[in-house]
Amino acid sequence: MSTSIFYHAGCPVCVSAEHDIINLIGAENVEIVHIGEERSRIAEAEAVGVKSVPALLTPTKNVLHLNFGASIEDVKA
Amino acid sequence: MSTSIFYHAGCPVCVSAEHDIINLIGAENVEIVHIGEERSRIAEAEAVGVKSVPALLTPTKNVLHLNFGASIEDVKA
Repeated sequence: MSTSIFYHAGCPVCVSAEHDIINLIGAENVEIVHIGEERSRIAEAEAVGVKSVPALLTPTKNVLHLNFGASIEDVKA
Repeated sequence: MSTSIFYHAGCPVCVSAEHDIINLIGAENVEIVHIGEERSRIAEAEAVGVKSVPALLTPTKNVLHLNFGASIEDVKA
């Protein structure tokens, strides 16, 4: 299985969704990226279509926004 | 792995997310429920916390709303 990328910003909704995703697809199948800390990757997240966090970029490059923690604009602020 | 439930209403966003979820966790690990057709299960979806579709109820009973297709109110209308 190709790797997914889970973008988050440390918010409670993010942490909860992270646990769910790891339980569902396995930690070995997903890269966890905290864009509040790895700020150089905010542009990458925006480029693939992430509008809010938490969000999962699938191996087929679809973005699944999972519930709503914070907008990308809030993370950038 | 316990079974998740994917609630949807046939909308384009729902269909896309359904493909993503099946690719990610495997068709054998998720029950697909079309609440636009199985209307008797709308109340069940609401009871577990589904506010909009598509949504995934995880084995730990958390609801992940995936992007946004339609509100439960729209499905009921």
